[in-house]
Order: sequence, then structure tokens, then C-alpha cells
Amino acid sequence: MKPALDLLQACELIQKNQLKVDDYLTQSVARADEVEPELKAFTVRASLKDLQSQSRSGPLQGIPVAIKDIIAAKDFVTTNGSPIYKDFVPSEDAEIVKKIRNLGGVIFGKSVTTEFAWRHAGATTNPWNSAHTPGGSSSGSAAAVASGIVPLALGSQTAGSIIRPASYCGVVGYKASFGAVPRKGVHPVSGSLDHIGFFTRSVADARYAFNLLRNTVIEEEDAIVIPELHPKPIREALDNTKLRIAVLKTPFDDLLSQEQIEAVQIAATLLEKSGAHIEEISLPQSYWDGIEALAVLMACEAAVIHEKHLEKFPELMSMDMRELISKGNACSVGDYIKAKNLQMKLRLSIVEYFQNLDVILAAPATGEAPKGLGFTGNPIFCSLWTFIGTPAIALPVTKSSNGLPLGIQLIGNYKEDEKLLNIAQFAETCFKTADRQP
Amino acid sequence: MKPALDLLQACELIQKNQLKVDDYLTQSVARADEVEPELKAFTVRASLKDLQSQSRSGPLQGIPVAIKDIIAAKDFVTTNGSPIYKDFVPSEDAEIVKKIRNLGGVIFGKSVTTEFAWRHAGATTNPWNSAHTPGGSSSGSAAAVASGIVPLALGSQTAGSIIRPASYCGVVGYKASFGAVPRKGVHPVSGSLDHIGFFTRSVADARYAFNLLRNTVIEEEDAIVIPELHPKPIREALDNTKLRIAVLKTPFDDLLSQEQIEAVQIAATLLEKSGAHIEEISLPQSYWDGIEALAVLMACEAAVIHEKHLEKFPELMSMDMRELISKGNACSVGDYIKAKNLQMKLRLSIVEYFQNLDVILAAPATGEAPKGLGFTGNPIFCSLWTFIGTPAIALPVTKSSNGLPLGIQLIGNYKEDEKLLNIAQFAETCFKTADRQP
Repeated sequence: MKPALDLLQACELIQKNQLKVDDYLTQSVARADEVEPELKAFTVRASLKDLQSQSRSGPLQGIPVAIKDIIAAKDFVTTNGSPIYKDFVPSEDAEIVKKIRNLGGVIFGKSVTTEFAWRHAGATTNPWNSAHTPGGSSSGSAAAVASGIVPLALGSQTAGSIIRPASYCGVVGYKASFGAVPRKGVHPVSGSLDHIGFFTRSVADARYAFNLLRNTVIEEEDAIVIPELHPKPIREALDNTKLRIAVLKTPFDDLLSQEQIEAVQIAATLLEKSGAHIEEISLPQSYWDGIEALAVLMACEAAVIHEKHLEKFPELMSMDMRELISKGNACSVGDYIKAKNLQMKLRLSIVEYFQNLDVILAAPATGEAPKGLGFTGNPIFCSLWTFIGTPAIALPVTKSSNGLPLGIQLIGNYKEDEKLLNIAQFAETCFKTADRQP
Repeated sequence: MKPALDLLQACELIQKNQLKVDDYLTQSVARADEVEPELKAFTVRASLKDLQSQSRSGPLQGIPVAIKDIIAAKDFVTTNGSPIYKDFVPSEDAEIVKKIRNLGGVIFGKSVTTEFAWRHAGATTNPWNSAHTPGGSSSGSAAAVASGIVPLALGSQTAGSIIRPASYCGVVGYKASFGAVPRKGVHPVSGSLDHIGFFTRSVADARYAFNLLRNTVIEEEDAIVIPELHPKPIREALDNTKLRIAVLKTPFDDLLSQEQIEAVQIAATLLEKSGAHIEEISLPQSYWDGIEALAVLMACEAAVIHEKHLEKFPELMSMDMRELISKGNACSVGDYIKAKNLQMKLRLSIVEYFQNLDVILAAPATGEAPKGLGFTGNPIFCSLWTFIGTPAIALPVTKSSNGLPLGIQLIGNYKEDEKLLNIAQFAETCFKTADRQP
């Protein structure tokens, strides 16, 4: 079958009446029917009739969107990936879901998450090879976009839950600056760390979704700023011969597969050939302490968030969840406050690095998606940027010898999402990744 | 002697060359020499020669400012109210001190704080009656302005440390919205709660200082927005016949002295006679839970902040400090996170109350300044607003039968400092408090 339409392609065709919403939704459902028996990206899907009845005019008119199953959507069972919520139907949409509907988007279904967006894996398989994990915790969202079911899916990241599955599935995953995307109505993992973000098939699509769905300064619904349908591909100001890209060295680079190291090198070389200046960057140990501090914040906040779950339904919680909660309960309040202080300190100090560079280029994961479905992969290459709250985007670059996607991530300065997206769009044109759909 | 000049009066005379800076500073020093033996508002003062050499042009040219002694000022011993720091001279100014100097202000001296701005009182006495406390923790700053030594002093509030001493000393005390005034270089009590604020002799002065010294969106020093020397007394938009003022009922109103109750009533009556609409407001228990939550945040954060002090200098810390730290160490991380969550929740929800009213009128303290110097008074009538981070301003209204000042506080909506200051300026004209200087 021919590759699915990207988000902006579909939007344009629908807005120009060159594609009927009913036909487009019919294709999406057909694609899902075809791949879902093996892919298992969704916990629940709307029927074609329901999808068609949801459609209304707006910049996202007729666009089917997958919603990670920790994000509330009215009339859909929202399990949070836990048997505790197996029959829970929220009475209200999460704020971002409300925005999607107001803009004409259609809620295609709820996509599989790990249990409460922590480790315990769901059923989803990797669209490129069903013996491999799609990554997590936003497993179903990454898989659904990679498989061409929907052009846009919502995910969330508390350590590496967008960047890593995007990389494993060969799609674009975008985690904006902390606080830039509304979280109301999303089951929290950790208030200090949770980011909502997007899976798409191009950087332009991620930017389009971000600009439509981000928080505006005035948070009233009426105040949504609707951008042009086609944002300019690259800002005039972006001069790629002056672009300073720093390849990140980390203290745990020995966890990287040879193929992942090469993927980063390929990306750096292509960017350099396109005029960018490539250098290396190392960060002091105080930055890498952020990874353990992230674990402290997450565990402590999760312990509070799941206090009642553990009290009432201990037998319905995985060992993974119970370990996280125990870790949280074992922390002292001093551990927590110090972790929080480090987060604020690094969020302020990272800005200094970006005075001399435009973007950091890094591995998004240790390598290709690991074999097996129980372990969704190591988030360590994402955690620092989630902790600090800087925007990060995953882009596919090449394939492993097993035919699985390998990507890179680009990290921008805190709150400079627009600049990161500009550079990512330029990088995407350099990589010209072929063979995007399994 | 004739009453000291207010801040804006002094600024205008200096700018118009009708008052020589040297003469003005000479008067300030003379007044300090006169009252300090009994008042004890300062830990250290600059010599007249040093003051004169500090002076430079700018909107605060020649204005002597008292700096609460937890705020770093280069070349001044900054004791933080603790014997641990008895010889500590910071090598850098706190950000707000830097701003004062850049605008032409003169650092008059360091004003007495309680130990680390917590309870253990310093030597300062109440300028109206030296047998009474000036309140705390910003004891010296309130007393120095009330006594006419300086027209502007910096304080800080973590529970009631600006509003209460302002009320006890009969001056204006202004605590802006959380985050609105720079804190860098101030010894923290509690990062979640610390506010920097101002003592002045009029609301117009408080507004002038706030507008000069507040955080701007761009935090670069060059970006300071210098307002007109004379802000309009009341915004055209303020229609006092439509002003909705709500008198606050609290669950601990039985702590109020009869005279303090009457002071609030006098204020309400004067405002009503001037056209305002007066009503009553009660808040649900979840709000009042904020007072215990404030105590949790403060204790937990203080325990981290003072960890090294307690380790190295236990014998130099008061029982009050050690109790605070013990309380913090006894809290669970869950207690802390829940307190923090409540703070965020109330900061969002208080906005709803302000949809139907303009300002809350409340008692700033239980009554007149208590007798004795060991206890700086109960901050309970200020704590909730510090916890939420809404702006609050104390205004003198009348005197007790003992001749001590009694005031009120006005509380505005979060981040609506300008509106609160407008209304406070209107209220000040209604109260026309006579006999302002002891």
C-alpha cells in the first residue's frame, strides 16, 4: 500500500476539498484494521461512524489523532495502562484533547501506554519487527504514527517516553519546553517532570501541532493562536553556514551500540556537509547528577500520586510500580528538595551553553529497539533534558542491520522551541530519510 | 523635629536641585544618631562620608535605603541575624541592591532581622514605644522607615515578616506577587515562600520602588524600565463607586484584639463612605489548610538550607531555629509534596474569587505590637497570602489606646500588583492617617 499522508498533507487536501474527510477516515480505519492484530497500538478505537460524526471544521478538520491512554478523552475508556482503571470513562476531556476537538480534530482512539506511564509494558509491538519493543511509555502513539494509521499522536515524557519510542519506531517525536503544552486532565507521573508532546512523520507536522496545541500566555480557549496552514519551512534567519551544532559526550556512552554511534556520526556528517559547524560538548558532573535527581523527583511524586492506588489495589499494581513507590517513600524530604533545587539551577545555567551553540546533537537511545516486549528500553539518553525541561526532538536517520530505525535527538535551549524546530526541519532535509513506513 | 521626607518628595527635590544630596544624607544620619541608641534598627551603618561618596545620578539619586540584613550588600557585614555570620562581608551585592545602586540609591546600612529571618528576635524596639516589639522578621527596616531615618527599606516575608512589622510600626509595607521582585543574593528562609518587599511612608512610594526594582521579563540589568518620577496617583480606570472590597472572615478571628477589629471596621466604613461597595468573604477550609502547609514548606526547606549551619555551629543557633529544622526533618516527602501541590492549587483557584471582587480587606496582625522584645508577634493573618503568593500591602489606619499604630492589609489578585497598588493609594487618601511619625 502507498504511504500514509503526513499531517500537513492531509490538512491541505482536506481544506482544499481534494480529500473527503469520510474517505480519509475510512483509510485510517482500514490501515488500523490491517495492522492492529499484530501491532496492538490501541486499547480502544472509535468506530468509523463515530469518527465521521466527530468531524467538524477547523485547521485539524478530519484529522484522526491517537491519544496516549493516560490522557483523558470523554466517552473513551481511559485505562492509564492499569487494570485499576479498566472501566474508567472520564466525564471531561483533558485540556489538549479539548483543543484538538475545537480545532476540528477527531479522536481516533486511545493508544497503549505502559502502566501509569512508568515501566510495566503494554502489548504494543514495534511496527518494523513485532518481536521488538516499540519503546515506551508512549508505545501505542509511536507505533500508530509509524504504521501510518494516524498522522498525529499525543505522548508524554517523564524521562524518555517520547524521544525513545520515536527513535525506535522511526518517527519524529517532539517534547517541547517544560510547561509549554497543557497537562490538565493527564494522569501525572511526576508534576516536576511530565511533558506532553507529539509524534508525527515530519518536523513541519510536529511544529504545526505544537503551534496549534501549545499553551498561550492567555490560557483562555478563545485565545488559541491559529498559525498559517503552511509555516515557512525554514526561517529566513537560519543561516546553516553559521549553525553551531555540538555533539554531546556523556559519561555513559559505553552503553551505545556501534550502530547508534554511527547514526549520530552520519547525522553530524550530513549536517556538516550542509554547512553547519560541528563541535563536541561535555557537561560537568553536576549536570549528570540530574539523572539521579530526576529519579528522586519521579519516585517521590509518584509515591504521593499513587498512595491511594497502592492502599486500595495493591494486587493490581506491577512490581515495577511498587518499586518506584517504595523508592519514593524511602527518600527524605531533603533528598527531594535538593533534587528540585538542582533542577532549577540547571534550568537557569543551561542557557549559558546555548550562548555559544545553537543545538545539541545526541543519541536518543542506546541503539535500535531491544528485542522482546517486556522491557521498553533505557531512557538514560533522554533523562537529563526532561529533567532540565529543554525542548528535544527525535528524528529518524538510518536503519540498523536488523532493519530497525535508528535516530538522533536534537536539544534546544529552554523555551526556544521555535529555534529548535527550525533547525530540526533543516536537519530533516539533510537526512532525507527514505523508507519511512514499515 | 519636622517629619522626614517621603521617598517621592525627596526624589523630586533632589532631581530639581532644591535639596542637596549631602544635606539630605546629613539629615538622615542625624536622625539615626538621635534615635538609634534606643531604636537599634541597624546592625551597621555607612559613615556620612561613605554615604556621600556612594551617591550618583539616577531616579534614586541620593536616597538612603536600609537593607534587611539577610540581603547581601558589598562592603557591609551581612550577619543574617546570626552569630555564625558576625564577620561575613559578601563580595557581591544581591541583585536588588545592585539595582538600587545602579539607579543612584545609597546603601544607608543593614537593618536588623530576626535570626535568619525566622523567629529569634534582634535588638530593635518599636519606634512608638520602646517597650514593644517592632514586629519581625524585618524589624529594623520597618522601624527605620517609621522613625524617619530612611524613606525606603527592603524587607522580606516568608509568613508575615513585612505586613506585620509595617502594621506594628505604622508604615506602608508592600509584598508583591511571588516572583515579582528579584531574590538573588538574599539568604533564603524557604524558596517556595520568600518574597522581597518594601517599607515606605506612602503607597505612591511603595509603587515607585516596586516599579523601579521589580523583575522585568528580560532580566538583563539594562532592561530596567524606569517609570515616570510621579506615577499618576490613581489610574483613570479606577471608579471607586464600583470598587468591590471584601472584608475577610477567618477561622481565627477570635485572636483579634477589639481595637484591631475596630481598625478594620474604620477602614471599611471610610472606604464605603468614599463610594466603595463593601461585602464579606469567607474561604473554604482548603484555603486555611494553606497555613499549616506553609509551615511544612518553610520547615522542610529551612532544614535543607540550614543543614550545614546546624552541623558546624549548633551552639550558635537559637532554640527557635533548631525547632524549625527539627520540624522539617520530621516531615515526610509526601507531606512536602502535598503542601506544594496545595500551594499551586490555591494560586490557580484564588483567581476565581477575584472575578467578583477587587480587593480583600483584612487584619494584618492580631492587634497592636505586643509588649516585650522577645516575641515579634503572630504572623497568622499574613500567612495564607504569602503561601498563595498574592500581593499584599499594609496601611496604617489608626492608633490603639496605648498610642501604637493599628493598620489593615489589602490583598490583590496574583500578579495584579498594579491594580492592588491603585486601590491602596485610593484607600490611603480615604484614611488620611495623621500623626505618622513617632
